[in-house]
Amino acid sequence: MATTAAPADAPDQRVQREVNAIADRAAEAQTALAQANSEAKNELLDAIADALDAHAGDIAAANDLDMAEAFGSGMDQGKLDRLKFGVERIAATAKGVRDVAALPDPVGEMVRGRNLPNGMRLNQVRVPIGVVGMIYEARPNVTVDVAALCLKSGNAAILRGGHAAERTNAATLKVIAAVLADHGFSPDLVATVDPYGRDGATAMMEARGHIDLLVPRGGAGLIQAVVRNSKVPVIETGAGNVHIYVDRSADLAKAIPVILNAKTQRVGVCNAAEKLLVHRDVAAEFLPMAAAALAEKDVELRADREAFDIIDAAGIEPLDLEHAVEEDWDTEYLALRMGVKVVGSLDEAIAHINAHSTGHTEAILAEDYSAIERFTRRIDSAVVMVNASTRFTDGGMFGLGAELGISTQKMHARGPMGLEELTTTKWIGYGTGQVRA
Amino acid sequence: MATTAAPADAPDQRVQREVNAIADRAAEAQTALAQANSEAKNELLDAIADALDAHAGDIAAANDLDMAEAFGSGMDQGKLDRLKFGVERIAATAKGVRDVAALPDPVGEMVRGRNLPNGMRLNQVRVPIGVVGMIYEARPNVTVDVAALCLKSGNAAILRGGHAAERTNAATLKVIAAVLADHGFSPDLVATVDPYGRDGATAMMEARGHIDLLVPRGGAGLIQAVVRNSKVPVIETGAGNVHIYVDRSADLAKAIPVILNAKTQRVGVCNAAEKLLVHRDVAAEFLPMAAAALAEKDVELRADREAFDIIDAAGIEPLDLEHAVEEDWDTEYLALRMGVKVVGSLDEAIAHINAHSTGHTEAILAEDYSAIERFTRRIDSAVVMVNASTRFTDGGMFGLGAELGISTQKMHARGPMGLEELTTTKWIGYGTGQVRA
Repeated sequence: MATTAAPADAPDQRVQREVNAIADRAAEAQTALAQANSEAKNELLDAIADALDAHAGDIAAANDLDMAEAFGSGMDQGKLDRLKFGVERIAATAKGVRDVAALPDPVGEMVRGRNLPNGMRLNQVRVPIGVVGMIYEARPNVTVDVAALCLKSGNAAILRGGHAAERTNAATLKVIAAVLADHGFSPDLVATVDPYGRDGATAMMEARGHIDLLVPRGGAGLIQAVVRNSKVPVIETGAGNVHIYVDRSADLAKAIPVILNAKTQRVGVCNAAEKLLVHRDVAAEFLPMAAAALAEKDVELRADREAFDIIDAAGIEPLDLEHAVEEDWDTEYLALRMGVKVVGSLDEAIAHINAHSTGHTEAILAEDYSAIERFTRRIDSAVVMVNASTRFTDGGMFGLGAELGISTQKMHARGPMGLEELTTTKWIGYGTGQVRA
Repeated sequence: MATTAAPADAPDQRVQREVNAIADRAAEAQTALAQANSEAKNELLDAIADALDAHAGDIAAANDLDMAEAFGSGMDQGKLDRLKFGVERIAATAKGVRDVAALPDPVGEMVRGRNLPNGMRLNQVRVPIGVVGMIYEARPNVTVDVAALCLKSGNAAILRGGHAAERTNAATLKVIAAVLADHGFSPDLVATVDPYGRDGATAMMEARGHIDLLVPRGGAGLIQAVVRNSKVPVIETGAGNVHIYVDRSADLAKAIPVILNAKTQRVGVCNAAEKLLVHRDVAAEFLPMAAAALAEKDVELRADREAFDIIDAAGIEPLDLEHAVEEDWDTEYLALRMGVKVVGSLDEAIAHINAHSTGHTEAILAEDYSAIERFTRRIDSAVVMVNASTRFTDGGMFGLGAELGISTQKMHARGPMGLEELTTTKWIGYGTGQVRA
């Protein structure tokens, strides 16, 4: 009716209507899924796993086309590796779906239950959230992981994967849709907005009242864009400026393998360590050992003045050592690079971490009880590790099964998000005519 | 540096800086409170309660000025009643603070704990959220309730109460600040942005990274404005288009007092019933009974055609009966008015409710087991009551102590928000040098 022009960045109205309609069909289908018992859901997931194995060739063929195009457009090696979805990875992903099927069903779990003084029986039970939207980069295994976690927890999923994986995702979703239909569930339960491209993602962010929860997963830019712009509730995931603090009480020999594992076991993941803080009392002894071990793994070091001088004096060769600049302390490198800093006390370490961390994971290496207690209590992050690698922050490692992502926010879910984090609760009061006085 | 004009609705930059600074001081103070043990926090709360009693005269005198100004400006009776904070209400509010002190401390509660296969010990424990912002209307008791709940759960509170209560809130916060200082806590723990007026509220919504959670409490307009505009995570509270469904299996005699209680025991509250759905099989018998009982309590009825004809034919006098229009079904009246509709089936009732409810509280009045099971499972609201008044949706009634508000969203908290809902969790992994293979 109105003839005023829409703002320049408003999503196309037709796309918005269609994405809302996709979400509403998903919501309609979800009301049936929410009532399905665990047996039916587990059979569905096992059948999806079987179908992924059976059609692995088709999916891998679609992936070959995506890979060729991505390679041709100059995609970097790390991204190409994440985009790759060959028969072997498809089999591993299918196994992950069977693992999710084997996990306990969170739906219906009684969180609290009591009788009220007036005789009413009050239950708080877990129920699905509803329609979960996921915006992620070109990693086809995420498509399957998210579908499995959402279906098991009684939720519908609406997906926007990275453009580079569109053929792979389409082939994967086709397989899942066929199994859903075969098992009497609506294919609308696992929907995609990929055909709408970027406008689809924008429309998901605007679909308040249609989508219940939006989870971005990927680089810091993607996540911040969704957090800033979404009208739908968002769970912020993934950014990890992860610290390891070596206390003066640390077992220094034990510290080296933990630091190497945290920094180098896998680079470019959110739970990899990025910063090393060392107590001044052990810096002169420990930093040359640590620097030599890290140098052997080709890790570049960005050190504050005090750490630089100690390491530089040790004459380690070859070694890529530079002075850190202020922005290093806030940077998630996602590379073979580590910031190194000497701190004068445990409290200085805690203050530095709480000021610069993204709230993902921090570790303390120490043998002193009081230092460990103080660190674990005062560090304000989703996960605190004591004498263990930060790489353990992972839904699978924590026994939650596959994970939807790692929440770095405090609302709703914090840390690895498994099935339970994909539920909300409902209170039910059973009375016999009670009224309030 | 840039000379471009700020958008018209951008908060004043100076106010934003100052509100951010208030939040940062609150966060700094909160790190100490987070470490306080329950004993210290309970003593603090008891002392606040005592001080409120001791200074009730000063607070009531400030409230008299607020009341006089509000009366002079033509504030309606309902709002004036909520603004009133005389000695008696102050005493009741102080008692509420002692009740919060007596509740179990959620901080440190172990939510999950297990040993991982690699020998690490993994704990998930409750920790405070951090800095909680509250934007609410002119109800001075909320100031005290929020302060008590936040302090007990280890959080700092930043408040923006309604303009009409500014003198009362200032007098109340002065009392609380003195007790905080006396007990070795920073007065920054319970801060206000009232001196900044509306700009203060806007700045709170923009204070992402400074304020961890924002809870609006008040009318639908206030809540929607905060939900739409806040960059800080929000919990949506309070709007209640509450339904009661009378099944064909209902004990009709028992139904009348429940409906009267839900509609009229207190008008203008979010858990009061707004809509009455009646199964067609009992409509002819039940609606004249219900309409007569409601008419006696001066409740106006807005009925669909079928309900209208049944009630109209009953010749009840006096009775304010009108035809409902479509928007009635989505309206929270907060008044002595009720929408009435005949439904052909349980499923029609469920579909109508899920389409029109705000997700607060719905009730079924029924004796049939299967109908009750189906209703409680399929209704998508925070609370479902069976044969009991919707007025029981309340933190106090649920045994949670005072409540911060009633969440109608699905993320983080759903239903009455007590102490536990003011916490998040932290994972702590205790290892002995474990690394990831």
